[in-house]
Amino acid sequence: MTAIKDRLKSLAGKKVLVTGGAGMIGSTIVRKACAAGAEVTVLDNMAPLYGGNLFNFSEYADETQMVYGDIRNRAMIEQVVRDKDIIFNLAAQVSYVDSNLDPFNDRDINAKGHLTVLEACREHAPDVKLIFSSSRFVYGDIEYNPVDERHPFNCLSIYGVNKLNGEKFYQFYHRNHDLSSIIFRIANPYGPRQQMKHSKYGILNWFIRLALEGKRLTVFGEGTQQRDYIFVDDLTDAMLLGAVSDIKFDIFNLGTGTGLAFKDMATKIAAAAGIDFVEWPKDRYFVETGDYISDIARIKDRLNWKPLVSIDEGIARTVEYYREHGKMYWDAG
Amino acid sequence: MTAIKDRLKSLAGKKVLVTGGAGMIGSTIVRKACAAGAEVTVLDNMAPLYGGNLFNFSEYADETQMVYGDIRNRAMIEQVVRDKDIIFNLAAQVSYVDSNLDPFNDRDINAKGHLTVLEACREHAPDVKLIFSSSRFVYGDIEYNPVDERHPFNCLSIYGVNKLNGEKFYQFYHRNHDLSSIIFRIANPYGPRQQMKHSKYGILNWFIRLALEGKRLTVFGEGTQQRDYIFVDDLTDAMLLGAVSDIKFDIFNLGTGTGLAFKDMATKIAAAAGIDFVEWPKDRYFVETGDYISDIARIKDRLNWKPLVSIDEGIARTVEYYREHGKMYWDAG
Repeated sequence: MTAIKDRLKSLAGKKVLVTGGAGMIGSTIVRKACAAGAEVTVLDNMAPLYGGNLFNFSEYADETQMVYGDIRNRAMIEQVVRDKDIIFNLAAQVSYVDSNLDPFNDRDINAKGHLTVLEACREHAPDVKLIFSSSRFVYGDIEYNPVDERHPFNCLSIYGVNKLNGEKFYQFYHRNHDLSSIIFRIANPYGPRQQMKHSKYGILNWFIRLALEGKRLTVFGEGTQQRDYIFVDDLTDAMLLGAVSDIKFDIFNLGTGTGLAFKDMATKIAAAAGIDFVEWPKDRYFVETGDYISDIARIKDRLNWKPLVSIDEGIARTVEYYREHGKMYWDAG
Repeated sequence: MTAIKDRLKSLAGKKVLVTGGAGMIGSTIVRKACAAGAEVTVLDNMAPLYGGNLFNFSEYADETQMVYGDIRNRAMIEQVVRDKDIIFNLAAQVSYVDSNLDPFNDRDINAKGHLTVLEACREHAPDVKLIFSSSRFVYGDIEYNPVDERHPFNCLSIYGVNKLNGEKFYQFYHRNHDLSSIIFRIANPYGPRQQMKHSKYGILNWFIRLALEGKRLTVFGEGTQQRDYIFVDDLTDAMLLGAVSDIKFDIFNLGTGTGLAFKDMATKIAAAAGIDFVEWPKDRYFVETGDYISDIARIKDRLNWKPLVSIDEGIARTVEYYREHGKMYWDAG
């Protein structure tokens, strides 16, 4: 496998748009694309409780064009997609808990927002390559592990329903309007640059905040449920490799292919912190999907990519990052 | 098989809401539910180019409550679902051609509209039984025939994408909020009471209008593509039987289980009219799905229902209806 940096050389000079570009995944792509010599536009609505944080790509602030805007704003989107070669369309409502409490908002962003971008590309950027961040939540109730891309869609959250709807929009615009896109069904992402203001995003990162604050970690129930935690550097490498590939359309699971029990994840993080076992809160319990381990045979084969960062290394790098920069992510209070 | 009328006796005294109740399928359900002694509320926005026609249930006008309204109106929907026992949620944007030309409108009605009804039921009518009219268009590009309910979703129209999204909302509200619903994936419906103002609804009915006007029928391409035409009386019997069943959630294909070549359908209708073979117009061509024949094993088994009306009888009854009432459906000009 050629070094990933070499494989991303073709990004040099490319016009790249990253929606949701101030979030964890988006900003990591922004940084790597800038490093590879791309001309990067960052679009983010900077919604207060969402994932955007300008600190995430502050070293590249001068090299990027920042657009404060929302993917639901059709007139703005029609302007910003013009002349782009690659669009990472990562803007999203990310919390599955919130999706069930406010299904209209989730649908508005995660379905209508993406339809808006696709319609704009059909008219104004028909040759663009689109990357869409879908989620393991489209599978919902898991029937078997590891989960391949043909697993049924037993969505247990409005978030999952609307991510699937988003996927189908991409698939439709490929089939009927010849737009190129790659859909990634992301397992459990974690790493530096995730927002840490509240616990509704990735739980691994949240546990890191609690541990750094010296608080006890709480594990719901037995904590034996398996999750597939994928480090943001591996995840974004896969997306970038997809963006520079010749693939016209595909759907990939994006995880490590290995499972880790929830309590073992917590133990790795906690070290010095104590762990309590308590009842599951109702709003989280009812979306429990069962164990989830990605089958990543397809993405390995098609993208010649594999995860490189072990969970121990990933946690260490994340803890290190927030130990240094935590004050940019939450108020010590 | 007990006579269907006997099996629908339990509708007596039931409070039934039919959204899109002035359309072909809706009004047929309204009439049968009234005949069975149900208290029926009809909700329809009477959008000019859509399927609603008050003539469709005029004999029952005094026995029904008519609400002029749109399923996207949350405040109104929250009122109208209260105390209902059964809701046939049939309101829809029906044209797949229009869905591709105006994807936002299709999404707004066929996805948001149904989410609005489901949210209202969760809050105000948790014990209601919901019936949802989905479509064969969720399958899109057909991989095998007959098509069972496990066929992949290769949507070729925005209409199909949003119908699938609607289904997933129903499935979610069943799994997570215990709402009962049955989803019917309807093949090619036809029969009395379809709107006949333009050709964007079912083509079989449109051909009947042309034939009654003495015009020539035009068959796209070879006309060998197989379709599964289901007569509205059979279709609505299945929905009504679902509504009075004990089923908490299920998804059924709803067709006859037999295919008919497009040109044979046209020949049956045309009789005296000539038939031309011309090129496919582009906007219809690109959603051609290939042959479609429903596998109806599941619905036969679970609902103890089977289609009773042959295509010859169904066409004869439809021609007869419009011969008598055509002036209520289109302007002779």
